[in-house]
Amino acid sequence: MAAANHPRVLVDGKAVEVMPVSDRGLHYADGLFETIRMCGDKAPLWSRHMARLDRGAVRLGLPAPDLELLAHECTRVSAGRSTSVCKIIYTRGSGGRAYVAPDNPRPLRVVMSREAPPLARIELAVTFCRTPLAISPALAGLKHCGRLEQVLARRELAGSDFGEGLMCDAAGRVIEATSANLFVLHDDIISTPDLAKAGVAGVMRELVMEILADQGCQVSESTLEKHDCRQARALFLCNAVRGIMPVTRLESKDLEVPQLVEKLSCKVETILSGG
Amino acid sequence: MAAANHPRVLVDGKAVEVMPVSDRGLHYADGLFETIRMCGDKAPLWSRHMARLDRGAVRLGLPAPDLELLAHECTRVSAGRSTSVCKIIYTRGSGGRAYVAPDNPRPLRVVMSREAPPLARIELAVTFCRTPLAISPALAGLKHCGRLEQVLARRELAGSDFGEGLMCDAAGRVIEATSANLFVLHDDIISTPDLAKAGVAGVMRELVMEILADQGCQVSESTLEKHDCRQARALFLCNAVRGIMPVTRLESKDLEVPQLVEKLSCKVETILSGG
Repeated sequence: MAAANHPRVLVDGKAVEVMPVSDRGLHYADGLFETIRMCGDKAPLWSRHMARLDRGAVRLGLPAPDLELLAHECTRVSAGRSTSVCKIIYTRGSGGRAYVAPDNPRPLRVVMSREAPPLARIELAVTFCRTPLAISPALAGLKHCGRLEQVLARRELAGSDFGEGLMCDAAGRVIEATSANLFVLHDDIISTPDLAKAGVAGVMRELVMEILADQGCQVSESTLEKHDCRQARALFLCNAVRGIMPVTRLESKDLEVPQLVEKLSCKVETILSGG
Repeated sequence: MAAANHPRVLVDGKAVEVMPVSDRGLHYADGLFETIRMCGDKAPLWSRHMARLDRGAVRLGLPAPDLELLAHECTRVSAGRSTSVCKIIYTRGSGGRAYVAPDNPRPLRVVMSREAPPLARIELAVTFCRTPLAISPALAGLKHCGRLEQVLARRELAGSDFGEGLMCDAAGRVIEATSANLFVLHDDIISTPDLAKAGVAGVMRELVMEILADQGCQVSESTLEKHDCRQARALFLCNAVRGIMPVTRLESKDLEVPQLVEKLSCKVETILSGG
């Protein structure tokens, strides 16, 4: 019964689980979100998440979020949990006239907590989804609330033994998994898809690139096709909630997990565990 | 005070103005909407709206909407209004695990009413917006809840005397206006952009094509570039709420309104007025 003392959802700071039906987040996906792994009341990647949220707000013309307030609210909803995931949704709020945004938007702030999945290593089989990702230079990189393509792609995996699906954009370029970024290892180079036209610029992707660069291993942001993945020596996925997810099978082909990925995985696990 | 007797918003049939914050419409734009002009308690384009909603539900894997119930609810929220606009939002509801949709979704149904704008002829100046529309074969044609690009494009027009903006997709093809479909008249042909990869397949667009075909005037669904618009004899926009909107200026160029458009406009006005 301890959990009952802690609100798990805050809407504009109030411990309620409802929101105005007029909100532009619902009507137009006019908002942003972040999904943040917490270790107790600490969020090891907090500053990266907030930097992205800030950049997104600038792109959408939203008032800058109050980061201290968000930090306080994430702590409140995750109270009593040793590990958890906080989701922040930050929309343009209500008002305006159809697509015409209000001049002085009053954003809606939703902060919610759920239990975190374990960081234990997953044996991840992946395949390619048929649902194409939009080529959307206006929204590429942003973690905005319009994620219907990911939902449709995920539906393709139902009943299969694939734990994730890789998504290509409408021109056939491999971009990311439904909820993770992709890294592709060939013998002499590590690549990750360029996200200028599609995809979400994950904070874990950013961290991984920095860690690898620190080790003298520059990651190339490239245009990748399916055959680049099929010919790869190894693949891994990553996101801010699960860390590094080595791919052990792509379609029907088994893949090794190189030592570099094992080491990276340990390092990221340590970071996400607050170490 | 009469209006106080009639709910203007129904959420799953209840006269409330809040909804669960867990709804997938908010989280992922995992839903559809329709914006329907009402004349008293009649919706002249009802069957077209419902056919599109039905098709959208099939595409997204949502349970078929209960059309009788929706009709009843649209009548309830528009009671006492001689003309109005009903908006229906139909989402996948709550549940599932992140992008993974629930196996047996229980959709959320929002039905709301507002006053209708007059059908009087508008002198419409339009320009091209810089915000590109996504090339999204998975979602093209659907009236889904992800409309952030339209919101951003609309922001470009703030403070200008342009009443609407034309949007091109990421490859530079002209697709539609922010909240209307486009028709382009050259001397011997009427064209409207092909919507296989981007855009919303408007019910008014469909009606206009049928009316013109009945008059022996076949509309060509084409790939159109900006210069096709700039060299056109005339342009008009249309949607289900405003009917036909002749463009009287494109950027700095004044445009005539041909008799064909005047007649079409009258005909559509009669239909939308319940005639």
